Amino acid sequence: MDFASFLTSLGTSFVIFLVLMFLFTWLSRRPGNYVIYYPNRILKGLDPYEGIRLTRNPFSWISESLASTEADVINMSGVDSAVYFVFLTTVLGILVFAGLLVLPVLLPIASTAPGEKADNTTSEGSFNDIDNLSMGHIQLKSPRLWAYAVATYWISFVAYCLLWKAYKHVSDLRAAALMSPDAKPEQFAALVRDIPPVPEGQTRKEQVDSYFKAIYPDTFYRSMVVTDNKKVNKIYEELKGYQKKLERAEAIYAESKQTSSPEGTRPTTKTGFLGLIGNKVDAIEFYDEKVKELILKLEAEQKVTIKEKQQCSALVFFTNRVTASSAAQSLHSTLVDTWKVTDAPEPRQLIWTNLPKKFYVREIRQYVIYFIVFLTIFFYMVPIGFISALTTLDNLKKLLPFLKPVVDQKAIKTVLQAYLPQLALIIFMALLPKLLLFLSKLEGIPEKSHVERAASGKYFYFSVLNVFIGVTIGSTLFNTLKDIQKDTSSIIPLLARSLPKSATFFLTFVALKFFVGYGLELSRIVPLIIYHLKKKYLCKTEAELKEAWAPGDLGYATRAPGDLLILTIVFCYSVIAPLIIPFGVVYFGLGWLVLRNQVLKVYIPSYESYGRMWPHMYKRIMAALILFQATMLGYFIVKKFYYTPILIPLPILSLIFAFVCQKKFYRFFQSTALEVASPELKENPNMEGVFRSFIPLCLSSEKGDEYQFEDALSQVSRTGSTV
Amino acid sequence: MDFASFLTSLGTSFVIFLVLMFLFTWLSRRPGNYVIYYPNRILKGLDPYEGIRLTRNPFSWISESLASTEADVINMSGVDSAVYFVFLTTVLGILVFAGLLVLPVLLPIASTAPGEKADNTTSEGSFNDIDNLSMGHIQLKSPRLWAYAVATYWISFVAYCLLWKAYKHVSDLRAAALMSPDAKPEQFAALVRDIPPVPEGQTRKEQVDSYFKAIYPDTFYRSMVVTDNKKVNKIYEELKGYQKKLERAEAIYAESKQTSSPEGTRPTTKTGFLGLIGNKVDAIEFYDEKVKELILKLEAEQKVTIKEKQQCSALVFFTNRVTASSAAQSLHSTLVDTWKVTDAPEPRQLIWTNLPKKFYVREIRQYVIYFIVFLTIFFYMVPIGFISALTTLDNLKKLLPFLKPVVDQKAIKTVLQAYLPQLALIIFMALLPKLLLFLSKLEGIPEKSHVERAASGKYFYFSVLNVFIGVTIGSTLFNTLKDIQKDTSSIIPLLARSLPKSATFFLTFVALKFFVGYGLELSRIVPLIIYHLKKKYLCKTEAELKEAWAPGDLGYATRAPGDLLILTIVFCYSVIAPLIIPFGVVYFGLGWLVLRNQVLKVYIPSYESYGRMWPHMYKRIMAALILFQATMLGYFIVKKFYYTPILIPLPILSLIFAFVCQKKFYRFFQSTALEVASPELKENPNMEGVFRSFIPLCLSSEKGDEYQFEDALSQVSRTGSTV
Repeated sequence: MDFASFLTSLGTSFVIFLVLMFLFTWLSRRPGNYVIYYPNRILKGLDPYEGIRLTRNPFSWISESLASTEADVINMSGVDSAVYFVFLTTVLGILVFAGLLVLPVLLPIASTAPGEKADNTTSEGSFNDIDNLSMGHIQLKSPRLWAYAVATYWISFVAYCLLWKAYKHVSDLRAAALMSPDAKPEQFAALVRDIPPVPEGQTRKEQVDSYFKAIYPDTFYRSMVVTDNKKVNKIYEELKGYQKKLERAEAIYAESKQTSSPEGTRPTTKTGFLGLIGNKVDAIEFYDEKVKELILKLEAEQKVTIKEKQQCSALVFFTNRVTASSAAQSLHSTLVDTWKVTDAPEPRQLIWTNLPKKFYVREIRQYVIYFIVFLTIFFYMVPIGFISALTTLDNLKKLLPFLKPVVDQKAIKTVLQAYLPQLALIIFMALLPKLLLFLSKLEGIPEKSHVERAASGKYFYFSVLNVFIGVTIGSTLFNTLKDIQKDTSSIIPLLARSLPKSATFFLTFVALKFFVGYGLELSRIVPLIIYHLKKKYLCKTEAELKEAWAPGDLGYATRAPGDLLILTIVFCYSVIAPLIIPFGVVYFGLGWLVLRNQVLKVYIPSYESYGRMWPHMYKRIMAALILFQATMLGYFIVKKFYYTPILIPLPILSLIFAFVCQKKFYRFFQSTALEVASPELKENPNMEGVFRSFIPLCLSSEKGDEYQFEDALSQVSRTGSTV
Repeated sequence: MDFASFLTSLGTSFVIFLVLMFLFTWLSRRPGNYVIYYPNRILKGLDPYEGIRLTRNPFSWISESLASTEADVINMSGVDSAVYFVFLTTVLGILVFAGLLVLPVLLPIASTAPGEKADNTTSEGSFNDIDNLSMGHIQLKSPRLWAYAVATYWISFVAYCLLWKAYKHVSDLRAAALMSPDAKPEQFAALVRDIPPVPEGQTRKEQVDSYFKAIYPDTFYRSMVVTDNKKVNKIYEELKGYQKKLERAEAIYAESKQTSSPEGTRPTTKTGFLGLIGNKVDAIEFYDEKVKELILKLEAEQKVTIKEKQQCSALVFFTNRVTASSAAQSLHSTLVDTWKVTDAPEPRQLIWTNLPKKFYVREIRQYVIYFIVFLTIFFYMVPIGFISALTTLDNLKKLLPFLKPVVDQKAIKTVLQAYLPQLALIIFMALLPKLLLFLSKLEGIPEKSHVERAASGKYFYFSVLNVFIGVTIGSTLFNTLKDIQKDTSSIIPLLARSLPKSATFFLTFVALKFFVGYGLELSRIVPLIIYHLKKKYLCKTEAELKEAWAPGDLGYATRAPGDLLILTIVFCYSVIAPLIIPFGVVYFGLGWLVLRNQVLKVYIPSYESYGRMWPHMYKRIMAALILFQATMLGYFIVKKFYYTPILIPLPILSLIFAFVCQKKFYRFFQSTALEVASPELKENPNMEGVFRSFIPLCLSSEKGDEYQFEDALSQVSRTGSTV
């Protein structure tokens, strides 16, 4: 890729971003769009514009983002979002500090170096301005390489310092949130799995209650045995569906009264498949009947479920937080595969179907899934390699000669050359997260946030291996197959040699991601269009309308690995092609601004894991750093630098640093420290409320008769409780 | 080694054993020796012969051993000893079951096989009877090898079954012991380490008490801050020394009254070094003065220690067992390196000097020690290799030609050939355990039993690597250096090829160990002689006499690795040279009998770890099994058996089995399960007694004034306690 097409790519991206930003400014001012641009504030009962109506210029959202504090983020969106900003700030900090030393020193060194003609610096073998600024331009064995070695050390140490601070800060955030005097239901509960078979003459709930009463005579409150809710859930969903249809039919009827005749036209429906075949009947009557019928059916099924479909898992409730969190950390039975007690997830996070999965089933599933993911990672590489090779213009021309007249036109050629490979890659990558989420859920994890973390980890390794290493080596493989045959022995020198050749590819990849990606994110064009279409043609009731603009959450599972991939790329190129650092800074800086806006005004978190995502992100940042250090080591060897061994301590230092950090901080992210659980609460918790908050929707009563599950779902044992 | 010298070795060993056994029968009947042969019973206040005086034949101890039950062992010697017998029984069971199939099938197959002349079957290249029975006698690619493959599978599966049962049994034993309604002090305590610096305006004990009172308002009893006892301990030891000398002087004086003049001669001593130089003074007066002086000094130092030498570690006491054991399993502080709470060891097991060691100091020490042990293991190999080569007679003759006339005499030659290498090996191995114990203690482990386990693990790996692999390969190296040069690539085929050559060496090694080793163990000749010498020439007072016959404990740290080494050897040869199986059976059978006798009558355990040794032994049995399977795989390759791959699943199966076992059972050996801690106690524990039992001897008052430490050593916080 030459300099002109690089600039074109950059320019086009920037123009798109500007257009999207102005679109955002214009659209977000119209009250009809408030539900798209301020849903979080609206749902929290705040005025969308409260206190921020002062400036109405297109950049006002930037100053609003900058003015917001960490406490605001925690208030509006929880600890998880705040931790995500700690991640963005830390990475931004590392890159800014790195750039401060690296850019003013390495760029002049590279540009004034006597270049190596026709060496492995560009993919086309011809020189251009960007490549002149990279480490590839330095001659073999040159003493100028010392500067690059120092830069590698500098970046590593900056990373250590800021990561340490960040880990400590996140740990404090987590502690502060867990210490909060507002009682949260999950802090009083523990999840029990692998309950052994019920002994003769006892019911499941008697078994659970007597077991925990013996161990915690003073603090055990009551238990809730997990039931197989598959059937009752299906009926419940059906009921909800008919209730919606009924509402809708009533709305249509009411509307018809206003628009056509005063008595209105009663809507009709067909009784068969999807309302398309069968007898034509009055819709309101039909749905009303269905709803009544299903309510009876649901109540009957609820009773059956609660009595007969009890599983080998339960939630137990304690009257204080210390006991609950210490129970979750203690071994209860002498055998690990029975009575396994762990932290209870938030009620909204519980994956009920995973709760009764047995210990060995979970273990085996986990390994099987790891194996499947391993296969996926390695077999996805094959099509990705092809795509990365096919989508370079030259290859396209060779393979599809009829395209030649089109792509040879100057303008089209430039644009295509700039975007085609990146677009293909981005589309390809969007297919995967769903699969990984599905696989992670199969592992038997009881918590939604944990599933997302697991999927996110898999996605990161996938993207680093396939996108970064795959593209880098893949393009080299296609370009210079003979080079490879010489040294197949080691991947690090191979990777190191291929890196400079792919530098501009990744520069444009990063630029595309931040300008177009964050532009779309900020302007919310797609949700806006969908909302307006739905509003116009589909939605009849208030509930349907609300559903149409419901904003969703930040989407950790794909966002974090995406950012980490960019970070890996920027780290690895930071010394070889320092020009990538400003791109990284813009990516994370812009990301910070845009997401700050989105978190405060748009997204609603679907769970709260109190920063448990952080250790995962931290681990991957360290992996990226070590990959960077190993790559540099390899590249210095390629450059025949005599003093290369002085870089050997770096990966070792990183491993020690990562080990110490995880050792010191990680356990608190696995389980709640007791000193954090011990502070006094604002008021004695309403234990009945805590208990009720865990009853799944499909089992809670429609009529508000709160006590119908008492005898079956759990046994009240108030004698021992102190509340 | 030829068959004659093998039989001689065996015969001699057996004769020695018989002699020692009759010696035992004769000596143990004399009442003057009761303290040597029945110390455990005497110290427990039982009649040495109670209920077992019926038979007085030399084999009566065998029937007594056989008649004793596991409950007897637990009563007399604790759970740890019972677990050791589970180990012996399990191994014995594996070998008996293995022998039942392997011996009647494999021996005829080998002896009727058309032999391979002059192949790699004996060290001398000539055939003899023993080698005819080994797998080395089977021709390459012979279909008879199928029987050996089946035998390998059989032994593995027998091992799996019995090990699973044993693990479960030990787990039950541990649970039963911990569930016991008799309160043990350590069950109410937890050890706190890494206490952060004392905040301004608080004392250390206020800090500890307020921290735990906040978390456990209802169950926290009080705390004991660990102090630096180095100086006070030195004074205490000195005082004890002078008290002993005083008693001794008084005894001598009393004796002189009876023997010489009625007014007696007062003993004298010199005031200088070791009582050898300086002024001559009256011993009783001098010692009496010293004792008085030191008591004052001790009291002063005790006060100083308790007030000013408090360390960053403490013992905390709870009023119930569940809280104590759940506290030991829970994270208390958000940072892992502060307020680390673990199980409290028994008071007698505490290593006070290790308690205040900081988290990172412990971690670093651990890795440094591992590294030192690693070096030790590999550098001990060099001298051992030399010894194993030098001590074969042929080599000795070559190196020391003047020995030739001596060693060429038939009788001497046979004996030397049989014993020399083994004796050298045994002596060499006896030097190591002390070093390993010392190193393990340096790791900062707070518990004596844990130190012994750590040392024992190191010793096992050492002995397998050096004795077994070292001797096997070492002898091959010296014998056939040219063989090695052909295939240095892999150690497994090399080991496999060398095995049959060393078979007879190990046969005699095992025989020597059991006949002579257990003979000496049973007859207790050495302690007996020492005791009688001391009694006659040294002991003047009752206390000194008691010290002279005090029996000590079983000596886990060296006994278990020794047994495991034998087990490794027997496992590895069980199929290649099945003749070793009966030797193994005799070793473990005789061991069971002799040690049962010793445990019931002689040894007094110096600690109780409730079977925590078992997972360590289990892990090493599995290591031996996997080594056996790998060796067989290698040897089948050497034998060019076409179907060798059918053995590949075995090591994988073993790894899975080991993994599942450890996963299921191990955690209970790390920490107490709460269901085990929860049963009601016989009576409410005397918390003051529990607390006092942890006060180190050097800090406990001489005068019985129990409350002098109250204000400084710990703060009584009775307000919150429920007892």
